[in-house]
Amino acid sequence: MTQPHLIAIDWGTSSLRGFLIDNGGKILETRASRHGIQNLPAAGKEGFEQAFIALCADWVTQYKILNAVTCGMVGSAQGWVETPYVACPAGTDTLLAHATAVEAPLGVRLLIAPGMKYLPEGGAPDVMRGEEIQIAGVFAIAPETRHDALIVLPGTHSKWARIRDGQVESFCTYMTGEIYDALSRHTILSRLLVAPNTCSDDERRSAFEQGLSLASNGGTGDFAHQLFSVRTLGLFGHMPQELLGEYLSGIVIAQEIISGIAKFGADDIRVVGEGPLCRRYQDAIRFIGGTPPILHGNTAPAGLFLFATTAGLTSQGDHETGQLRTG
Amino acid sequence: MTQPHLIAIDWGTSSLRGFLIDNGGKILETRASRHGIQNLPAAGKEGFEQAFIALCADWVTQYKILNAVTCGMVGSAQGWVETPYVACPAGTDTLLAHATAVEAPLGVRLLIAPGMKYLPEGGAPDVMRGEEIQIAGVFAIAPETRHDALIVLPGTHSKWARIRDGQVESFCTYMTGEIYDALSRHTILSRLLVAPNTCSDDERRSAFEQGLSLASNGGTGDFAHQLFSVRTLGLFGHMPQELLGEYLSGIVIAQEIISGIAKFGADDIRVVGEGPLCRRYQDAIRFIGGTPPILHGNTAPAGLFLFATTAGLTSQGDHETGQLRTG
Repeated sequence: MTQPHLIAIDWGTSSLRGFLIDNGGKILETRASRHGIQNLPAAGKEGFEQAFIALCADWVTQYKILNAVTCGMVGSAQGWVETPYVACPAGTDTLLAHATAVEAPLGVRLLIAPGMKYLPEGGAPDVMRGEEIQIAGVFAIAPETRHDALIVLPGTHSKWARIRDGQVESFCTYMTGEIYDALSRHTILSRLLVAPNTCSDDERRSAFEQGLSLASNGGTGDFAHQLFSVRTLGLFGHMPQELLGEYLSGIVIAQEIISGIAKFGADDIRVVGEGPLCRRYQDAIRFIGGTPPILHGNTAPAGLFLFATTAGLTSQGDHETGQLRTG
Repeated sequence: MTQPHLIAIDWGTSSLRGFLIDNGGKILETRASRHGIQNLPAAGKEGFEQAFIALCADWVTQYKILNAVTCGMVGSAQGWVETPYVACPAGTDTLLAHATAVEAPLGVRLLIAPGMKYLPEGGAPDVMRGEEIQIAGVFAIAPETRHDALIVLPGTHSKWARIRDGQVESFCTYMTGEIYDALSRHTILSRLLVAPNTCSDDERRSAFEQGLSLASNGGTGDFAHQLFSVRTLGLFGHMPQELLGEYLSGIVIAQEIISGIAKFGADDIRVVGEGPLCRRYQDAIRFIGGTPPILHGNTAPAGLFLFATTAGLTSQGDHETGQLRTG
């Protein structure tokens, strides 16, 4: 095993994930904890310190780690130390210039990456916290994206980010995951949706695509009407009840993708994240936009390593094109 | 007081409203009860009978009422007797032809109006139950609408209905009220929304119109992004927290109106219902469609009376243009 050199932490609202990384960017060990910023073992600064110790005290003492980097809600107003948003356009250098250093327990210096804000002229502000590091991770893993790419990060609050010349030029948040969750759990639709047990993958995909198709043929504001079709298709027996959730998912996700493609185009889309949701987005973008996007996995550790390298915390020479080797 | 002649009941999911009406359509007394079909005093048929007795036994015995009419969820599969939907185009005569007669307690014959379904070619079915009688009520109150009108019934599941030649030609349901409720109570926005205490009516109207304006300038699928602006406007202090609920309401209602006007046009819109929600729709339709709609109140009793007249249960001669006199 190569020498552990750096601790990277993706610190979110409900959980955190820690990565032990060597000087070249190889991930040596991964850990997760429930100590998200809304779930700390104690209030305030002490809670963050205890969570840090619980996650990685043995890493620090065993390997004499001096530096750690982190991103996400840990830098929010409710975080360890508030690290204000930097304005777009912004790149990894900008993140570093506005990072906050914290004296963490056991003598570790912890660098908190700021989030990003986008202030469109005449429009409402937009914000992200954590995704900017996942985007940096795409730069590290797929350097060709630095010049020009469209990065999509599906989730509770999905982000679409336009990349130009190594910077996030603009981005747009969609509350898609939260809308799906609220609709499927807290409306009349909740009683209709049952988990598919007897349906084949093909049937599920077909129901999902039927939802995509309905939304694709609709216009502005039709969403609230399309949702009602989830009920009537069930009521009239036009779709097995087990498939209504897939159909609803198709409608809700399609709305985001139609809007995102209208704003940003459909060329060279990169989807970032893990799990079935990202494959769902991949399918939906292909269905609606006509081009199959490339799927990158969880790019947060690669992004945190690039951030650390930009900060001079690793000996990676060419951090502009430095690739993370996942071990 | 003129002689009571007919009992009319608007029987919904969570409540019912009873009207004692004379032979000319004048409402002599109004009562409400909590015995909606999901809140009956006993299970099945017995529950409906008990609720009927509790609501109006004294009316029946005191005035020797022989006939009653009802509409709404009482005719659903979970209702007193299922009364299947009739297909559009359909008018008051069609409702009568497919009504169900029930031998209610105390020797009363109760006529249940069916709901309506609309089966667009190649599209998902749509349904209403209760609104078809409210629409009949608009015919009774404003006979000029029989020829050609667009009737909007705001609510949990708003309806837009195109009227031609005395019939509901087509209609469209929007789950707007339920979406607003689910979003404002079960997403991250719930923590931001506080009741306005210190803001003026003008400020509230302005925030509502800012929401309408945002949605009007958006495209298909932008809804999930527009919602996020509720959060960021609060986060950046661009709008007082007390006004965010008005702004959200503007966004959600505008979506429906943009879609409804795109489908049906904006000429001669009639808004049906009571309370502040309908005035909100009136304002929003004027803002988006450019024409001020006429606001009718609760037209259900007028519609039930027209239904009864069509059934020959009153001596109103000219039931085609018969107007209800509210007393």
